[in-house]
Amino acid sequence: MDLAAYLARRRELVDRALERYLPPRSEPIVEAMRYSLFAGGKRLRPILCLAGAEAVGGDPQTVMFAACALEMIHTYSLIHDDLPAMDDDDLRRGVPTNHKVYGEGMAVLAGDGLLTQAMVLLTDPAETAGHDPARVLEAAQVIMRAAGWEGMVGGQAADLEAENAAPDLARVQLIHAKKTGALITASLQAGGILGGGGREQVETLVRYGRRVGLAFQIADDMLDLSGDPRKLGKATGADQARGKMTYPAAVGVAAARETGRRLVEEAAELVRSLGPAAEPLAVLALYIMERTN
Amino acid sequence: MDLAAYLARRRELVDRALERYLPPRSEPIVEAMRYSLFAGGKRLRPILCLAGAEAVGGDPQTVMFAACALEMIHTYSLIHDDLPAMDDDDLRRGVPTNHKVYGEGMAVLAGDGLLTQAMVLLTDPAETAGHDPARVLEAAQVIMRAAGWEGMVGGQAADLEAENAAPDLARVQLIHAKKTGALITASLQAGGILGGGGREQVETLVRYGRRVGLAFQIADDMLDLSGDPRKLGKATGADQARGKMTYPAAVGVAAARETGRRLVEEAAELVRSLGPAAEPLAVLALYIMERTN
Repeated sequence: MDLAAYLARRRELVDRALERYLPPRSEPIVEAMRYSLFAGGKRLRPILCLAGAEAVGGDPQTVMFAACALEMIHTYSLIHDDLPAMDDDDLRRGVPTNHKVYGEGMAVLAGDGLLTQAMVLLTDPAETAGHDPARVLEAAQVIMRAAGWEGMVGGQAADLEAENAAPDLARVQLIHAKKTGALITASLQAGGILGGGGREQVETLVRYGRRVGLAFQIADDMLDLSGDPRKLGKATGADQARGKMTYPAAVGVAAARETGRRLVEEAAELVRSLGPAAEPLAVLALYIMERTN
Repeated sequence: MDLAAYLARRRELVDRALERYLPPRSEPIVEAMRYSLFAGGKRLRPILCLAGAEAVGGDPQTVMFAACALEMIHTYSLIHDDLPAMDDDDLRRGVPTNHKVYGEGMAVLAGDGLLTQAMVLLTDPAETAGHDPARVLEAAQVIMRAAGWEGMVGGQAADLEAENAAPDLARVQLIHAKKTGALITASLQAGGILGGGGREQVETLVRYGRRVGLAFQIADDMLDLSGDPRKLGKATGADQARGKMTYPAAVGVAAARETGRRLVEEAAELVRSLGPAAEPLAVLALYIMERTN
């Protein structure tokens, strides 16, 4: 299968849906929210959510609202992570970060607005009408737990505390699992739940997601260490400059690459057990580590 | 009825439930979240939610999860509003604000964590088990719309933009309606929905909530102008010093007090149409303006 074409098609579907879910408004807060939401994201989490639904036999279009909620949550986390009080980044995806354009106060609110809008979308009566309400609640619960203090928020907090601490593999893994892995896993899990998957099918997606989430972060760390800033659209070497613990810093580049490869191969094998509808997820997993070559 | 005793009893019930919903943990992010959540709030929104459920014949204990979610949302908004990039407040309820204790980055995350935890609570399978899932989704939708860019977040953004603008009554009213009124109204509406209320009963609660929400903000503005800082636990005159538009600044103190009185009298009359179970809400409305005498 042609992964690049598949990703481009799905990305366009997601972009069009996001445009429908958060159309332009005269309110400046909506402009600030849209600025980051449409700043060229890869839409990985929504694509995983749609593919998760498909892998268990569901129709991806019916879970688009959840997919877009996930992208809003991801975007909010980037806006807040970039703030001067956190990572203090000026560039993101090649353009100035939200607070550089709208000011710090508005950037905090733009993030708050996107996080809240995600929940509005997850409980939208028009979008959820075709689903069993109990499954909608279950999917929302999965996503929000992954986003909160047990997941993404907790990971970012642990990351703040860990700056300038000595690299420690267990700590790095825990931070990665919370900060990046939790929401990636939740994207697949929510897709599986809303796609009508059975308990075991959803569990397979969760196991796939854990491996892919960690591999994704390892790849990101390696790109920060050795990637091309022009291709990435942001400065590289930032983790090192801040004394951040990263996977390659903790175990070395070769071991990090080897671990990443093992994880994506396991993930591909796991998800192929769901049948041909899961093939895009298998191919996508293997691609993650290819980016770092 | 003895309003003070009623409020004290309800407040204690809410405090105990919040303690159960967000118990101490070793993670520093949870400590930062709990710091503001247990910093002595009046628990007005949860109390209104419980009373809304009661007013339509429901059992307040069964809506406690939604009541506590509302308090988490309220607390998150205070933490973010107090940030240096926003209102830059050092004191809140007589104690240092969250960022003064934990630093700005952690305060942003503590707010994010509380907002997300509210959504976790609203979709908690154990808490929502006794309810019709469709009603749970409806209540969550109402609360999140009130919290987002159409409501509280939008109001705070409009407030940021309006600093140092000439006082303008229509603008003041819109900001108040979004920033404070929306979540207060949603508290009553969600209580009514989860309490099993009919469409007209819930609509009466909404109309009550709009009036009480606006009166509450008028009273707050008047206390900022003329209240006793020791009783309020925060500095007064802050709105004036920042050139913020307030209700009394726009129309004068006497007219503001008169408007507030008219609103709470209308609210009390409206809600009494629901019968004796709504009496606490009627008494509570009338009390709002008494604080300012």
